[in-house]
Order: sequence, then structure tokens, then C-alpha cells
Amino acid sequence: MIDNLLLTSLDIIDTPGGNVLHAMKKNDEGFSGFGEVYFSEVGFKSIKAWKRHKDMTLNLIVPFGKIKFVLFDDRVESIKKFQEVIISLDNYYRLTVPPMVWMGFQGLSSKGSIVLNVANIVHSDDEVDRKQINEINYDWSK
Amino acid sequence: MIDNLLLTSLDIIDTPGGNVLHAMKKNDEGFSGFGEVYFSEVGFKSIKAWKRHKDMTLNLIVPFGKIKFVLFDDRVESIKKFQEVIISLDNYYRLTVPPMVWMGFQGLSSKGSIVLNVANIVHSDDEVDRKQINEINYDWSK
Repeated sequence: MIDNLLLTSLDIIDTPGGNVLHAMKKNDEGFSGFGEVYFSEVGFKSIKAWKRHKDMTLNLIVPFGKIKFVLFDDRVESIKKFQEVIISLDNYYRLTVPPMVWMGFQGLSSKGSIVLNVANIVHSDDEVDRKQINEINYDWSK
Repeated sequence: MIDNLLLTSLDIIDTPGGNVLHAMKKNDEGFSGFGEVYFSEVGFKSIKAWKRHKDMTLNLIVPFGKIKFVLFDDRVESIKKFQEVIISLDNYYRLTVPPMVWMGFQGLSSKGSIVLNVANIVHSDDEVDRKQINEINYDWSK
């Protein structure tokens, strides 16, 4: 794994009328304070890439659809450069992304997909670096 | 409105590849600390009722589908007894439910529905009161 990237299995609780899906508790590994929670929708085959947060730790949960997250780590001390993580209710994990790692994601469900980010700070464009999709050499078609 | 029940309009931001849906920031009205976030799915026409939390303030957001929430307030000082709130992306609000108010909800979308609860404490059965659906006189078929 990329340094400080965490993948944590989450419980799905079978409940009459509809399941309860765990996301994050304040004592969970990877929790580093509460700033904001927000959702991102991503259409089938759509790609949102690339962003890097200087201060925000992301905690990503996918309650609907299926999403491929691609992490790219160009920190000099890093050994592993690229990492792919696919999350859905069939593979229900929380992905914790530390600051200074590039992240992009792609929707893999024809019904659309939704990701929740439990962020330790309120979103601010001041702490976000962006690159165009082609500025990092990754084959999204594979 | 029932005392201390809040309904807060949330922003939906049009973004290439899929919208960003605001949910809750730490400085928002209705935020009273972070304990846990979790999802509940609710099937079409399914009903989950009734629960009352002694300590938890609920902050409810519906990123998928359409849900009717029914609140029942039997606190003696309360004037308004029942209140219905329907939330979906077409009517995108956060519903803040204070402790000691009974709550039930019903899925109104044939595709299923999902609600996120941003809770000020970690869920514990010790602080939950429950009633069977028929113990509070409300017509869910209307």
C-alpha cells in the first residue's frame, strides 16, 4: 500500500426495510477530526482526475454504485507509486487517503455511483492542487 | 415546525462527471458534534418506524431516492404533534431532528433510497426507545 493509505472493512447490517451501512465513527482508525461531509456523484465511465489535497485527509465510502479510485504518490520517500482500489457494496470498505497523494476516480456502475467524503477540514480550493487527466500517465481505459 | 426541528437547504454543485452534493460542515446550524456517520437504505414503500433517541441529534441527508420522514412529538410543551418532510435531490434539504422526538420514514422511490445520518454521538441501543408501527396513530398509506 501507499504510505498511510488505509483500507478498512465496514459492516453492513441486515435490517427490516433496508440495510444499515456503517461509514465512520469518531474512534475509528483513519479519523482525524471532523470538518465536513459531502457527496460526489460520478456517472458511468466518467472520470474525475486529478486532485491532491495539502491538508485534507479523505475518508471515502461508496453507498451506491461502484467506483475505481486511483492513487498516485510522487512523494520522494514513497516506494509504491500507483494504487487502484475498487469499492462498492459488494466490496464495502472505507478508503483513507492522506494529504499529498494524487487521487482520481471513475464510475463503474451503469446506474451511477456516489461517494461520501468524511473530511477532517472544510473544503477549500486553497489547499487543492489539480492536474489535467493527461498530466499523470495512467491508462483509464484498462 | 416541531420545536428544534430544522430544515436547511443544501447546495448541489454542477461539476463535470457528476454533481457535488453538500451535506454538513462543522460550522453549520444543527451541528452539535461528531460521533458517527452511517447510512440507512429503505426500499420502495418500506417503512422504518418508530424510534426516539434520548441523546442523539440526527442530521439526515438523502443523496439517492426520495424519503418521507414523519416526526411525532409527544413532549408536553409541544404544540405541533406530527410533521411530515419529504426529501430528495429535487428537494435537497438537511433535516435536523432533536432528541426526544419520535421518527419514522418511508421509501418513496422505486429505485430504493438512501439516507445519511450525521450523528453527534456513536449509535448505542441504550439511548434508543422503540415503538411498533401501530403504537403511534399515523396513516402511512396516505
